Amino acid sequence: MTRTQVLSIDMMGGDHGPPETVPGVAQAAEALPAARFLLHGDEAKIGPELERHPGLKARAEIRHTDKSIASDEKPAVALRRGKGSSMWNAIEAVKAGEADAAISSGNTGGLMAISKLVLRMSIDFDRPCLVASWPGAKGLTTVLDVGANIDCDAERLVEFAIMGEAFHRAVHGVARPTVGLINVGSEDVKGHEEVREAHAILSSGKFDLDYRGFVEGDDLSKNTVDVAVTDGFTGNIMLKTAEGTGRYVEQALKGALTSSPIAMLGAMLARGGLLQFREKLNPPRAAPLLGLNGVVVKSHGGAKARDFRDAVLMASGFAQSDFAAEIERNMKRLSAALAESQASTVEEPS
Amino acid sequence: MTRTQVLSIDMMGGDHGPPETVPGVAQAAEALPAARFLLHGDEAKIGPELERHPGLKARAEIRHTDKSIASDEKPAVALRRGKGSSMWNAIEAVKAGEADAAISSGNTGGLMAISKLVLRMSIDFDRPCLVASWPGAKGLTTVLDVGANIDCDAERLVEFAIMGEAFHRAVHGVARPTVGLINVGSEDVKGHEEVREAHAILSSGKFDLDYRGFVEGDDLSKNTVDVAVTDGFTGNIMLKTAEGTGRYVEQALKGALTSSPIAMLGAMLARGGLLQFREKLNPPRAAPLLGLNGVVVKSHGGAKARDFRDAVLMASGFAQSDFAAEIERNMKRLSAALAESQASTVEEPS
Repeated sequence: MTRTQVLSIDMMGGDHGPPETVPGVAQAAEALPAARFLLHGDEAKIGPELERHPGLKARAEIRHTDKSIASDEKPAVALRRGKGSSMWNAIEAVKAGEADAAISSGNTGGLMAISKLVLRMSIDFDRPCLVASWPGAKGLTTVLDVGANIDCDAERLVEFAIMGEAFHRAVHGVARPTVGLINVGSEDVKGHEEVREAHAILSSGKFDLDYRGFVEGDDLSKNTVDVAVTDGFTGNIMLKTAEGTGRYVEQALKGALTSSPIAMLGAMLARGGLLQFREKLNPPRAAPLLGLNGVVVKSHGGAKARDFRDAVLMASGFAQSDFAAEIERNMKRLSAALAESQASTVEEPS
Repeated sequence: MTRTQVLSIDMMGGDHGPPETVPGVAQAAEALPAARFLLHGDEAKIGPELERHPGLKARAEIRHTDKSIASDEKPAVALRRGKGSSMWNAIEAVKAGEADAAISSGNTGGLMAISKLVLRMSIDFDRPCLVASWPGAKGLTTVLDVGANIDCDAERLVEFAIMGEAFHRAVHGVARPTVGLINVGSEDVKGHEEVREAHAILSSGKFDLDYRGFVEGDDLSKNTVDVAVTDGFTGNIMLKTAEGTGRYVEQALKGALTSSPIAMLGAMLARGGLLQFREKLNPPRAAPLLGLNGVVVKSHGGAKARDFRDAVLMASGFAQSDFAAEIERNMKRLSAALAESQASTVEEPS
């Protein structure tokens, strides 16, 4: 890639705004010496922060707007009133070909709705697919969809597999990610019809995918596969269940370690290990929206500078990758496989 | 209740057999001074253990059989070859009216299949509904179905709500348990059609239920409601996700606390608190099979004496409760509500 990469950033999203987004972008800029940055938002708030980061300032351009999308804005309202906001403008720059990727820590529903309207879907999903990076014993498992597309037929699940695999390679640098389909057991006869049908398509060997079959809820934290696929209903509930369990465990541990003066002393001594432990449990707070004509990365609403840096770096790596071309290749294979399986169904007596 | 309660127990199930089941029943017998016990299994193995527990021996009767169901037996095989086994006989005694409840730590699939065949379903489920007791900050939440009935329509979800509520009252002594329906968000417009329809039925106010609407994956460990209802596909995946997360956290914590000599010293000092912490995370290892004409409680395959005691006590409390009558009352209300909603649907122009 010879052309300079341009990253388009909504500086006003999330709970903190410029005091965290500006240092976050500045940290990313250090790791991306060739990139340029479009900073969308209120110049009066971004400007003073930017003064402290001359390295970034030299490669950044503030695109001023007064308007921003509130973190509790309903998606429909964000769509209706969002035009000209920092979030909208960040995405619009990708659409206009000015930038290679957009990043925002603004509200998820609004970001999905505006991305879909401005960039359009490259695949016929209801909404851009949400991806989670699931921390486990051996690293991260990419899980999708975690909440955007509630009702999914077999074809949709296979599309998630194709996209998740290409994403995992693009962002985590794994040459040939393994893929699994989330189900209630490992046998072919188990589960919903949609899941069994997707399993049959993925098992057909017609895709350039290392498909490993069914995985279960406890396989995620074991990192049994690199990419785990499920519908948005199940994925959202899984993710929230794990988050809830994690929070409960953290609280219970805190209670245990403050239950007596001796336990508190013990906790103080073990502090270094406990901080590492906490770090290990916290998933990355950046997630791409997949299925769009363009790269959009969502950073967590509570993102601090370091989290925001990670989101910018994810977007940069993702935009530089071969993702779009790979998806196109495998989607063509999917159409061919589906056409073939329909043809063979027609041949059989009903 | 004036009649003596009789509990029918498969002594050969699980990983340990009589060395754990006999002391488990003996501990339960101490808490249930009026109950009698039918002990199904190999007399040569049960007898010597029973000698050590004269209190139980005086109220127990060994029903000898050589046959038992292996823990890895497929349900179909358990059905075909299970007749006369300790598990089968334990359930048969309930069917024959000799006993009020059956308890087994044998394999779940076999127990479900044999229970269904011998006792028959009282409700038209595919299989007996599996219930989990979910540990959280304020106590236990009853979650069902966690794996038996994969495809569930709205009516089935409402039946789970009715059964879960009555079960929670019977076993946890909560006079008026609160009930929630698991979904991806709290708004009426979200989720699958089945979930939205079940929500509409439960919200109609025609049941004697304290229905609180939708809950999410992270509400379980917060104990937002006493009873959380979902289909067996989602429930199984949630349960395994939480188990996997719990195991991962435990391993990571262990790693953190052995990462340096000082951390190890700290962990030693905090040991009391950490043991309490572990205890808090471990869910009860007994679960009823719901929807049968009779009480069957499944104890965990790895159940030790104390776990097995808890399963026997759960079965006893459950069998003594008003559960069956309550279910019947609310199921009649459900039929009436469904008939009414169908009638009103017919009236509307299509």
